[in-house]
Amino acid sequence: MHKISVQLPQNSYNIAIASGILPQLGEQMNQLKLGKKVLLVSNPEIFNYYGEIAIKSLQNEGFEVFHHSIPAGEQSKNLESIATLYDIALQHRLERNSTLVALGGGVIGDMTGFGAATWLRGINFVQVPTTLLAMVDAAIGGKTGVNHPQGKNLIGAFYQPKLVLIDPLVLKTLPEREFKAGMAEVIKYGIIWDEKLFLELENAEKIDSFTNINPELLQTIIMRSCQAKAEVVSKDEKESNLRAILNYGHTIGHAIESLTNYDLIVHGEGVGMGMVTAGNIALALNLWTKEEGDRQHILIKKAGLPTEIPSHLKADDIINLLNNDKKVKDGKVRFILPTKIGEVVITDQVSREVLVEVLR
Amino acid sequence: MHKISVQLPQNSYNIAIASGILPQLGEQMNQLKLGKKVLLVSNPEIFNYYGEIAIKSLQNEGFEVFHHSIPAGEQSKNLESIATLYDIALQHRLERNSTLVALGGGVIGDMTGFGAATWLRGINFVQVPTTLLAMVDAAIGGKTGVNHPQGKNLIGAFYQPKLVLIDPLVLKTLPEREFKAGMAEVIKYGIIWDEKLFLELENAEKIDSFTNINPELLQTIIMRSCQAKAEVVSKDEKESNLRAILNYGHTIGHAIESLTNYDLIVHGEGVGMGMVTAGNIALALNLWTKEEGDRQHILIKKAGLPTEIPSHLKADDIINLLNNDKKVKDGKVRFILPTKIGEVVITDQVSREVLVEVLR
Repeated sequence: MHKISVQLPQNSYNIAIASGILPQLGEQMNQLKLGKKVLLVSNPEIFNYYGEIAIKSLQNEGFEVFHHSIPAGEQSKNLESIATLYDIALQHRLERNSTLVALGGGVIGDMTGFGAATWLRGINFVQVPTTLLAMVDAAIGGKTGVNHPQGKNLIGAFYQPKLVLIDPLVLKTLPEREFKAGMAEVIKYGIIWDEKLFLELENAEKIDSFTNINPELLQTIIMRSCQAKAEVVSKDEKESNLRAILNYGHTIGHAIESLTNYDLIVHGEGVGMGMVTAGNIALALNLWTKEEGDRQHILIKKAGLPTEIPSHLKADDIINLLNNDKKVKDGKVRFILPTKIGEVVITDQVSREVLVEVLR
Repeated sequence: MHKISVQLPQNSYNIAIASGILPQLGEQMNQLKLGKKVLLVSNPEIFNYYGEIAIKSLQNEGFEVFHHSIPAGEQSKNLESIATLYDIALQHRLERNSTLVALGGGVIGDMTGFGAATWLRGINFVQVPTTLLAMVDAAIGGKTGVNHPQGKNLIGAFYQPKLVLIDPLVLKTLPEREFKAGMAEVIKYGIIWDEKLFLELENAEKIDSFTNINPELLQTIIMRSCQAKAEVVSKDEKESNLRAILNYGHTIGHAIESLTNYDLIVHGEGVGMGMVTAGNIALALNLWTKEEGDRQHILIKKAGLPTEIPSHLKADDIINLLNNDKKVKDGKVRFILPTKIGEVVITDQVSREVLVEVLR
C-alpha cells in the first residue's frame, strides 16, 4: 500500500492507495481511533457494487454501521439533500466522534463532506472515492459543498477528511465516459505541476479507458495526481493564492457546464475544453508555444475527450457567466494560463477582446 | 478602547470594547484590509436602532454596504433563513473577500456566522453583538449555526470572526429580561474561571438592569467575561476538552428551554436554572460546600433571574432529553460541576439516581 501525506497546519491526513484495498477500509479506519458509529453515504448504484464490502470491512473491526443513499448525479447536490442527511444523522444519533464515510464520486464526496463539516459543528469524515475524478481531485483537499440553484459549489466549507482510501480496481465499474472525464484532471496535473506525469501519459499506449490502460500505469498516474494535489493543498489550504492553479481549465469549463445545464457535458469534458481554451489564450498572449499547445491538445484527444466547445454556445454567454464565478476577485476574472508543460501562472490580465477572439 | 486578543493556531482576532464605539465600526474594519463589499445582517428592530449608524460608519470608510433583515427570535434560526441569506449574497454578488457583519444578538450572530462560513466556502465575518448574552458569549469563540427542528444548534460550524466590536451603550435598548438573561452568562464565568469577577458581582449594589448597574462596572464585567471566554477558547478552539466548561449550566438549561418550546424560558434563564441544578448536583456529590452553593444561588437571584425549574416539567422528561444533547459522548452525559467559586470539573459520573433526586 502507498501512503501520501497531505500536510496541513492542522488536520493533516493520509491518502492510502492500492489495488484491492477496499476490504481494508475498516482496518485503516480503526487505526485512527474514531468513534464506533459510522454512517456510510453512497448512491444506489455504487452501494450495490461496493456497499456490502465496505460495511463488512467496518463491522469486522467493531464499527456500528448505518447506511444512507442519495440519488446519483449533480441534480441531487443541493441543500435539500443535506437537510435529509441531517435528519438521518439525528435519527441514528451520531455523536461528535462519529464518522461519515463517503463511498462514491465527487457529488457524494462533496455532499457527505459538507454534512460532516456542519453536523454538530463538525464530525469525522472519510473519503472512499469510486470515480477517477474523485480519486485524483474531488476527494483530496477538503473542498466540500453543494450547488446553489444559480451556481455550482457556491455553498460549502473547507473541511478535511481523516483519511482518503483509493482502490483503483473499483474503476472497473465506472462508465467509460466518466473514466475519460477523470483523465482530464490527470492531464491537468501534468500541465500545472508535474511534467513527468505528462510525459508518462504521452508515452503510454492507451489512456482512454479502464480496459485499455495498463493497470500499473493507472495506479502510478493516480498516485502522481494525488501527490501533486497534496503538495499544492499543503502549501495553500484555503486557496489564498497558489491553490487556484488547480482550477486550470475550470473557469471556462464551469461556464460550459452551466450553459449546457450540467447534462450535455460532464465536468471533466468541460475541463478538457477549458484547458484547450486556456492553452489558446496562452498562445494568443505568447505565454507558451504552438507546439506546447498542440501537445496538450493531442493528449486530451488521446484520452478520448472532446476538445471543441459545443458550437451552439455563444462567446458572449460564456464571458458573461465567467463574471459569476467564485474566482472573481474585485470584479476581475482570474485565469490560470500555462507557460510551459508543468507550469502555469495566475493572471487577471486577459482582455475581453482576447477572450472573444479565442472563443470564436 | 480596550482590545482583547483571541489567540488561535490560525485566525486569531481582536475583541474591541468601549462605550460609544459603534460609530467606529468602519474605521476598525478598514484596518483589517477586507474587501469593499459588506452585507450587514440584522433584525428589523435592531436595524431600526443601530443600522444607520453602522452603515454610515462603513460608508465613510469607502465600503459598499448592503443590508438584510431576518425576523427576530429563535424560530428564525433555521436552514431556510440561511438559504435566503445565500440568495441575498448571490444577488449582491458577494466575493471571497467580502464581509458579512452581524449586528444583533446571538441568533443573528450564529446565523450570519454560519452563512459566512459556508458561502463560497467561507467569506469574512464581523460580529457586532447588541445583547449582553452575545457580547459575553455567543459572539466570541467561533461557534456558528442554526437549529434542527429536533434540537438547538445541531447544524453549524466552527468559524472565527475577523473582529468582534462591543459597544455596551447599545444595551440601553435591550429589554430588561434579556439583560438579566445575559447576566447569567457573566455569573457563569465567575463560577467556572474568574473568582474575582464573581466577587465584583457580589459586591456590586445592583446588577439586574442596564439602568441599575454602574456603567463602569458593566464595561468591566463584559471585559472580564470576554477575557475568560477568550482564554478558554484559545486553549481549546474546537471543544476537545477544556472548552466544554463553557457549557456550565447549559446541559440542563438546554433541556429546560427545549421542554418549554423555547418560548416560556429564555436561554439565560435556562442557564441560571441549570447552574443552580449543577450546584445542587455538586453538593449531592460533596464536590463543593453548601455555603458556595448558596452564594451562587443568591447571586443568580440578585441578577433577577429565576432559580427554580418550572414545576410542570418532569424530572424524567429532562433526563431523557439530556441524552439527545450534543455533549453526549459514547452514550454518557457529561456534566460540568463546580468544585469551588472559580473552578469546575468535567465528569460523566453522575448517576441517574442523583439526577432524579436533585431534579425532584
